[in-house]
Amino acid sequence: MSYKVLDTNDINFLNKIINDDKRVLIDGDIREEYSHDELCGIQKYPEVVLKIKETREVSEVMKYANENNISVTPRGTGTGLVGAAVPIHGGILLDLSTMNKIVEIDEENLTVTVETGVLLMDLTKYVEEHDLFYPPDPGEKTATIGGNISTNAGGMRAVKYGVTRDYVRGLEVVLPNGEVVELGGKVVKNSTGYALKDLMIGSEGTLGIVTKAILKLLPLPKKTISLLVPFPNLDKAIGTVPKIIKSKNIPTAIEFMQRAVITASEEFLGKKFPDSKADAYLILSFDGNTRDEIIKNFENVAEICLEEGALDVLVSDTAERNVAIWSARGAFLEAIKASTTQMDEVDVVVPRNKIAEFVNYTHELEEKYEIRIRSFGHAGDGNLHIYILRDELDQEAWEDRMRKAMNDMYAMAKEMKGQVSGEHGIGYDKIDFMRESIGEASYQAMKAIKLALDPKNILNPGKVVK
Amino acid sequence: MSYKVLDTNDINFLNKIINDDKRVLIDGDIREEYSHDELCGIQKYPEVVLKIKETREVSEVMKYANENNISVTPRGTGTGLVGAAVPIHGGILLDLSTMNKIVEIDEENLTVTVETGVLLMDLTKYVEEHDLFYPPDPGEKTATIGGNISTNAGGMRAVKYGVTRDYVRGLEVVLPNGEVVELGGKVVKNSTGYALKDLMIGSEGTLGIVTKAILKLLPLPKKTISLLVPFPNLDKAIGTVPKIIKSKNIPTAIEFMQRAVITASEEFLGKKFPDSKADAYLILSFDGNTRDEIIKNFENVAEICLEEGALDVLVSDTAERNVAIWSARGAFLEAIKASTTQMDEVDVVVPRNKIAEFVNYTHELEEKYEIRIRSFGHAGDGNLHIYILRDELDQEAWEDRMRKAMNDMYAMAKEMKGQVSGEHGIGYDKIDFMRESIGEASYQAMKAIKLALDPKNILNPGKVVK
Repeated sequence: MSYKVLDTNDINFLNKIINDDKRVLIDGDIREEYSHDELCGIQKYPEVVLKIKETREVSEVMKYANENNISVTPRGTGTGLVGAAVPIHGGILLDLSTMNKIVEIDEENLTVTVETGVLLMDLTKYVEEHDLFYPPDPGEKTATIGGNISTNAGGMRAVKYGVTRDYVRGLEVVLPNGEVVELGGKVVKNSTGYALKDLMIGSEGTLGIVTKAILKLLPLPKKTISLLVPFPNLDKAIGTVPKIIKSKNIPTAIEFMQRAVITASEEFLGKKFPDSKADAYLILSFDGNTRDEIIKNFENVAEICLEEGALDVLVSDTAERNVAIWSARGAFLEAIKASTTQMDEVDVVVPRNKIAEFVNYTHELEEKYEIRIRSFGHAGDGNLHIYILRDELDQEAWEDRMRKAMNDMYAMAKEMKGQVSGEHGIGYDKIDFMRESIGEASYQAMKAIKLALDPKNILNPGKVVK
Repeated sequence: MSYKVLDTNDINFLNKIINDDKRVLIDGDIREEYSHDELCGIQKYPEVVLKIKETREVSEVMKYANENNISVTPRGTGTGLVGAAVPIHGGILLDLSTMNKIVEIDEENLTVTVETGVLLMDLTKYVEEHDLFYPPDPGEKTATIGGNISTNAGGMRAVKYGVTRDYVRGLEVVLPNGEVVELGGKVVKNSTGYALKDLMIGSEGTLGIVTKAILKLLPLPKKTISLLVPFPNLDKAIGTVPKIIKSKNIPTAIEFMQRAVITASEEFLGKKFPDSKADAYLILSFDGNTRDEIIKNFENVAEICLEEGALDVLVSDTAERNVAIWSARGAFLEAIKASTTQMDEVDVVVPRNKIAEFVNYTHELEEKYEIRIRSFGHAGDGNLHIYILRDELDQEAWEDRMRKAMNDMYAMAKEMKGQVSGEHGIGYDKIDFMRESIGEASYQAMKAIKLALDPKNILNPGKVVK
């Protein structure tokens, strides 16, 4: 693939589209953060950054780029982990975080309409002020909604409420040729032709650019109670999860964590975790409208935990205690990152009754390859976040051992009928692993779809498929 | 488009694949029902019917058809309404209703794995025996699960539980080239490349043939209570729905019905409806685990109904009374069909606060075009089922008036930001209406995807796009 290098004429034309020179950045005005994301090793500067304010701009830029064979990369706040928002071919970077208005809340249809750059934390706060609830809850609250949609972000509440896909009713999307389409709408059902809306969700800005979204809301549950459950070891902790699911008392979230990760988080936050007696924990949350309703739900779960060997069940029913538990959980990624020199991640998802087996396998790999591996994750939905840490390894040993450990993990996930990514996406970094895992027929189907919608391969090229 | 007409060599080859001559039907052995569906006017016999037992057969047939340019139409039990399962180019008809084993129930992951031909009513019964719940509830219980997936069938419980798409975790699909792919799995989250699984759902057997499905289950709610609420007129009945939604007490189902349709149903069933005092009704159902929990939920809704002018609120909390109400609702389609000589249908979905306006508009059209129109539907999710009735009109008047009324209705749905089909699909009959409604850019994107996955256009050609 080779793309046109932007010249003065191109920049002039883009300036005409944007018509605000503070929103067209070139050369030294392009900040370093535009050249990478939060984790993926790849770094590349775009030739121009356009800070987008409206759909018309995206449409005109795409038309121009399509005609002139210029690569375009859409970006939210750059919190991705797999390089999807890195402009690996230079070209135009669209900063969509500046297109961030909340357009409308509709209480008769229980929807909120937002522009793509609205931050998850701002959306959550806004709808809660209307006594409504946007359930998806990815850890990174400063991500944009457009980014969440583009990766089909999951989060902790997927056990009970599902993922971002389940809350997207309608999208406004700019296609690679610059056409603007509306997919879906406020409607609750839709069987009108192919599911273009669903195809766009999770396509990481390679099939179209999401500019607006109509999101489904629920009534806000009035109360949340968390349980912190210490176990003598991880096996017993995670082994309890299928029994909880089988009991048909479905919590909102079930997370697992181990002592080593908690210690890193305590050091990182400078705050003690509320319990110190155990090596492994489950944290569960339950929501509902009354304390009684929730208690009825969690009592049975607490009993199951104790039967399965839990050392205790600590109930946290005040906002402060909930914060103490969940802030530790929220700091894990940053804490692990701070504890080493470099790391890479694996975001597999496996059937939830396979999690314990998978985590044990990562412990075997720690020994096999003499490399430190830390994990935490969503025990309730089978999605693990596993970090392979470089520490003091030299470049060659790091790359060799990291790659071997990753290969083994993805092979094991495949064997367990799991998937390469539960919520972080494929981006630039995981294409080969995905191809190996889903098989050639599915990969070629994906590639055919990419070329059908973007025949010149100008929209975020080299991501998801290549 | 022209396809190869099957000759003796082709039939011999297909016989080799199936290896059971009772499952290869030609000529006089092809029953009349294979030439049409439940409603769509189009009729065409296939050249051969293959009664499928396993995925291998589908794969080998598709490979052969793809190499030899033979059109293939997949079919479940033929309960569709828009011609999607009619073999309009002859060729091979795959009867998938004979591939109908329930493969596995997994209580630790809350999934059931089924072959494509399992009937909805058999699935529902099977999982309920395990105290589990498959929420999608389309009216036609003798449809196959494969058919439900191919149209993204909705049903009455969409208000609270969503549609078929929301319960499909994984699919086994045979692509037009004969390759067998597994999409998704038992996993709860998945961000691994393009959403091929979601693209297949609702594609009406034009992008791939669903052969197996892994479906998500929920714990079975222990109790259901229905409310039958008579209103002095339809406006007041449907006008109440947005107020119920806004009150944040979300029922499982909210249906509306009018006296004329109830009368037709009474005549059809030979059974009196439980109430005779009103012209318009809402039926609501609520589910939960205890009577108290449900009552708390519906009391508020009952109050809203009375405030909005309901004549009464009749609580139905026994299985017998529930049957009396819901069997009338279940008979509407058949009852209306029995009341006329011929009919066609409109399955639009609009934002739920637009339903009353839309139904009133159909009443205007009755007068404007002097044609009888009957409707009922899902007040809670905005999906209307509207039937235009021929009665004693001659062919020319019928086609003219029906077409004009339809055009007006689809135009109004578009104006309201609705969609052409809420749950019945596009099939053969609604392509032009869809194209007009979604616009040329979306239509061309759909067409490009079809050709990307089926370059020879041999799989169910002339459906969804043409």
